[in-house]
Amino acid sequence: MPDDTPSRPKTPLLDRVHLPADMKALSDRELKQLADELRAETISAVSVTGGHLGAGLGVVELTVALHATFHAPRDKIIWDVGHQCYPHKILTGRRDRIRTLRTENGLSGFTKRSESPYDPFGAAHSSTSISAALGFAMAANLGGDPGDAVAIIGDGSMSAGMAFEAMNNAGHLKKRLFVILNDNEMSIAPPVGALSAYLSRMYAGEPFQDLKSAAKGMVSLLPEPFQEGARRAKEMLKGMAVGGTLFEELGFSYVGPIDGHDLDQLLPVLRTAQARATGPMLIHVLTKKGKGYAPAEAARDKGHATGKFDVLTGVQQKAASNAPSYTKVFAQSLIREAETDDKIVAITAAMPDGTGLDLFAARFPKRTFDVGIAEQHAVTFSAGLAAGGMKPFCTIYSTFLQRGYDQVVHDVAIQRLPVRFAIDRAGLVGADGATHAGSFDVAFLSNLPGFVVMAAADEAELVHMVATAAAHNSGPIAFRYPRGEGTGVEMPTRGIPLEIGKGRMIQQGSRVALLSFGTRLSEVQKAAESLTAKGLTPTIADARFAKPLDRDLILTLARSHEALITIEEGAIGGFGSHVAQLLADEAIFDHGLKFRSMVLPDTFIDHASPEAMYRSAGMDAAQIEAKVLEVLGVAVVGKRA
Amino acid sequence: MPDDTPSRPKTPLLDRVHLPADMKALSDRELKQLADELRAETISAVSVTGGHLGAGLGVVELTVALHATFHAPRDKIIWDVGHQCYPHKILTGRRDRIRTLRTENGLSGFTKRSESPYDPFGAAHSSTSISAALGFAMAANLGGDPGDAVAIIGDGSMSAGMAFEAMNNAGHLKKRLFVILNDNEMSIAPPVGALSAYLSRMYAGEPFQDLKSAAKGMVSLLPEPFQEGARRAKEMLKGMAVGGTLFEELGFSYVGPIDGHDLDQLLPVLRTAQARATGPMLIHVLTKKGKGYAPAEAARDKGHATGKFDVLTGVQQKAASNAPSYTKVFAQSLIREAETDDKIVAITAAMPDGTGLDLFAARFPKRTFDVGIAEQHAVTFSAGLAAGGMKPFCTIYSTFLQRGYDQVVHDVAIQRLPVRFAIDRAGLVGADGATHAGSFDVAFLSNLPGFVVMAAADEAELVHMVATAAAHNSGPIAFRYPRGEGTGVEMPTRGIPLEIGKGRMIQQGSRVALLSFGTRLSEVQKAAESLTAKGLTPTIADARFAKPLDRDLILTLARSHEALITIEEGAIGGFGSHVAQLLADEAIFDHGLKFRSMVLPDTFIDHASPEAMYRSAGMDAAQIEAKVLEVLGVAVVGKRA
Repeated sequence: MPDDTPSRPKTPLLDRVHLPADMKALSDRELKQLADELRAETISAVSVTGGHLGAGLGVVELTVALHATFHAPRDKIIWDVGHQCYPHKILTGRRDRIRTLRTENGLSGFTKRSESPYDPFGAAHSSTSISAALGFAMAANLGGDPGDAVAIIGDGSMSAGMAFEAMNNAGHLKKRLFVILNDNEMSIAPPVGALSAYLSRMYAGEPFQDLKSAAKGMVSLLPEPFQEGARRAKEMLKGMAVGGTLFEELGFSYVGPIDGHDLDQLLPVLRTAQARATGPMLIHVLTKKGKGYAPAEAARDKGHATGKFDVLTGVQQKAASNAPSYTKVFAQSLIREAETDDKIVAITAAMPDGTGLDLFAARFPKRTFDVGIAEQHAVTFSAGLAAGGMKPFCTIYSTFLQRGYDQVVHDVAIQRLPVRFAIDRAGLVGADGATHAGSFDVAFLSNLPGFVVMAAADEAELVHMVATAAAHNSGPIAFRYPRGEGTGVEMPTRGIPLEIGKGRMIQQGSRVALLSFGTRLSEVQKAAESLTAKGLTPTIADARFAKPLDRDLILTLARSHEALITIEEGAIGGFGSHVAQLLADEAIFDHGLKFRSMVLPDTFIDHASPEAMYRSAGMDAAQIEAKVLEVLGVAVVGKRA
Repeated sequence: MPDDTPSRPKTPLLDRVHLPADMKALSDRELKQLADELRAETISAVSVTGGHLGAGLGVVELTVALHATFHAPRDKIIWDVGHQCYPHKILTGRRDRIRTLRTENGLSGFTKRSESPYDPFGAAHSSTSISAALGFAMAANLGGDPGDAVAIIGDGSMSAGMAFEAMNNAGHLKKRLFVILNDNEMSIAPPVGALSAYLSRMYAGEPFQDLKSAAKGMVSLLPEPFQEGARRAKEMLKGMAVGGTLFEELGFSYVGPIDGHDLDQLLPVLRTAQARATGPMLIHVLTKKGKGYAPAEAARDKGHATGKFDVLTGVQQKAASNAPSYTKVFAQSLIREAETDDKIVAITAAMPDGTGLDLFAARFPKRTFDVGIAEQHAVTFSAGLAAGGMKPFCTIYSTFLQRGYDQVVHDVAIQRLPVRFAIDRAGLVGADGATHAGSFDVAFLSNLPGFVVMAAADEAELVHMVATAAAHNSGPIAFRYPRGEGTGVEMPTRGIPLEIGKGRMIQQGSRVALLSFGTRLSEVQKAAESLTAKGLTPTIADARFAKPLDRDLILTLARSHEALITIEEGAIGGFGSHVAQLLADEAIFDHGLKFRSMVLPDTFIDHASPEAMYRSAGMDAAQIEAKVLEVLGVAVVGKRA
């Protein structure tokens, strides 16, 4: 009988390494073998689970070198973003669960404090690692946890303002701290911005600047091979002389660039740095995303995120898809609007593929702006474009829009500038887990004066909301839509602007009105079908707008039903809270109304399938049905866990 | 009969300049005189109104030079923060109202789009100007409003990550754009950080780097005096060669540093730049905050913000103060806690004076961190400190905490790290207006799982909340308190940790329960006194916690009263919304409850006194009383506008 499980690579050395301490006795030659086995194991694991492959493959040697040199968990090794942490997880006691990555109750796809003491600081959003590492470093200086702090950050993440803030502060504080710049010329998309161009110039053979002054301060820190005058040392000197200026101006000692796949470079540099550094030090490492796995190296995104795949061929399993994704519907709708309105421009913060703006950029390259990982700037840049007469669509995932919240308030809302916020990944997102959940945008936008806040109930609604946003030029407007595929509804050929602040009736029933905001509508409809079969036909409405509320619709529903239940893919403080405020202000509660607001629960929900996450949030059809029965005082039936 | 109004300076030339167009015919010599008159007028105006003096005096010549060179409002002159815009307002048609600065219905203390077409982009929070200017520049390129975009940004503001993000993007886009770095070595506090040290080195006589390569790209842009080989040109060359590297690495052409008080330098540089620049250009200008007014120059903060003062002596009128400010109470309480707990550290983002951490720093210099204008980093740095075993108090104004919202969610809340957020300037703040209002923190923090959110009802409560935060080491905790003086209550000698999630009864009454969160409590008590005199004694409670809610207290109040009214100094989505959610979940509305939630209205409230702002928000004692009478169906009396 053939074995169904994919064959595992042979990993005799890795099989003996359960924790980083087990690596300390290995020779440099054995470490190289360990790296090869670690790479094979990483590929094998991700072929089973899917996930972020390219980033991890790019840091296999760096991971081995760091754990061979530093002493985790006493030393804090902090991976920025965390996409690249699978090899780190394999080496730090989690190999036995590595084939559960990103699945329910399995390992997180990112670093996570609650998962392991070897993850001193969790991540998922970019550019936090230097701030966190500096916090650990200063804590150690003040009698907190001892140990070194090492941040590993990609060149894309380095372009975020937050990383600059942290570098600036670290250069000022002058304490021992290690920043490894993992320069793979690629964050998720090819990086944009002047910093990226600067990094590229470093190893493009440009003439040296003043070699002596650039190398100053480094003499006592030079790795052994350099002092011995070896061939490689000359190359390193070149890197040091050409590359360091920007970081040295910020107060860091600089080493690099060095080849991040060559342990003969990595090990001596890290060992020397670890032995001798007295202040903040930046080690510039060049790596290749997807390194060592041909299908990943050949892919345009270097195997950034992948489904399950066949290790030999690299061919991914693709789920059959019936409906277009919301992201694609958004992009196509925006293209259609832009074809007849040359003032429409689109802005993304380093997510052209994820937001669908790669499609828009292909059609309108001059009207697309990828500003890099820079959400604060993205929002205010959009505000400037709007003030200059353009119609900007600022396209950001819900969770990342949190990065630009002050700019939304201060530069957009207070000035009533017509910036359009296209908010992708609204609600629970599945395998990326709690850090990527789009839970808070409805709450944090709907209390801003003058804002219009919409949520699409399905992909056809999204088409109309793009048209609505294009037409709405008197102030800020936002529309949210989830990750994944639509519901398969018939699609309009062209979006028609909605009336601002008007919802729509879906079906007229009695006793209870279900008022949905967003894509829970399909679950509401399923619940209603089941209830109808039991003799209770609920009224259903799609609010469309959390702001301004459709007062007439809501008050009519409230006055003509025994119960009113709102439901939304968001936390408390959003749509349901605005409805409650209206009902209170209008004295509807004075004489009784069975009002309930179904919102995301007060907990961060771990990664699982979106369906499982919504079930654990109490928001699937069965739970909506149970809520109706409970509120109406009917015996609860059909409830499931 | 003596004239009571302070004597106005003689300003014959300024009297003829109503708009920048009037300056175009003036000779350079006349422009110098205009600058002198503008400085005198600025001092005279601020002596009457109080406000931000030092920043404006520092840019008098720069303001004149910009308006003499560029063509506003077609060209967009964008002042970062806006503290320094009073001279600009005087030159742009607002001189007749300059003595209404920061007063109700008067001119804003910042730039403001709704106030003048010469304010193309409003400001108040720092570091937005380059993003906005780049937006205008790209809009002009794409057929939007034509004209140049000029951002004027201080060296302190330049240290914020957002400015770096914008510079990085501008360097990438390579379009014509002007950034004036107004380097006065002082933002509000003396600047911190490595960038500041870098800027200082520029003109400290350090040896030149490779002069030729640093000056490359500038040849075609050199101002005339340089090409003529004048004495000053040599000095400029020195600055250019020494200073530009960092900015040139980011893709900017660089000129400077030049003397920002010398029109003989400013005018030719700006004119040449205006005539010839083809890409992004940074002009580095050295100025002195408070320049030309001895009392401001002599002050430690260079006359940053001042009350009304006597022009001759510089002596400020100080309002008599009965109670200590909340800020000072916070600082003293934190010092007291830190005296017995060496793990307590404090973090500020460039506001040591405003937050009271200057007092803490004087006592515990090594345990105080001023990270610069860098709220994103401040929050995650605090999270790192907490993960490293310290007890960080991250001390940020409510409005500026918006800058670090994602970090609060992603780095603090999801990881349940015990970062303490001391949120000053909660609620409406007075003369700084809508941009500085602390309206949204209760909403955006209270929906984060695991957070504790408190508001102090008076300064004694604040002492206890500092102790509560110090003692709470199992997760994040925030406490908010307003600008200004306390209520004069008796102060405890030492804070005693409060029970988490427990409010307190203030007085037992009947029919209506008033549940206050924050310092509206004193207005609630005034309203209650008036109602008691009319025969209706309300119950009063202080919630203390928006999260976790005191369920027992709230449900007891709801069940034992005809009406329950919550009141808070914040927008919808916060305390009142959480109470409404609880009441709905507990089926309290099913059989009727006169519930109302008094929150800030759905509008940005312009600057006025805090009292006037709360009156316009409908939240003073008379309005609370009116709300009670209205809800209970008693004839409305005592209502005022």
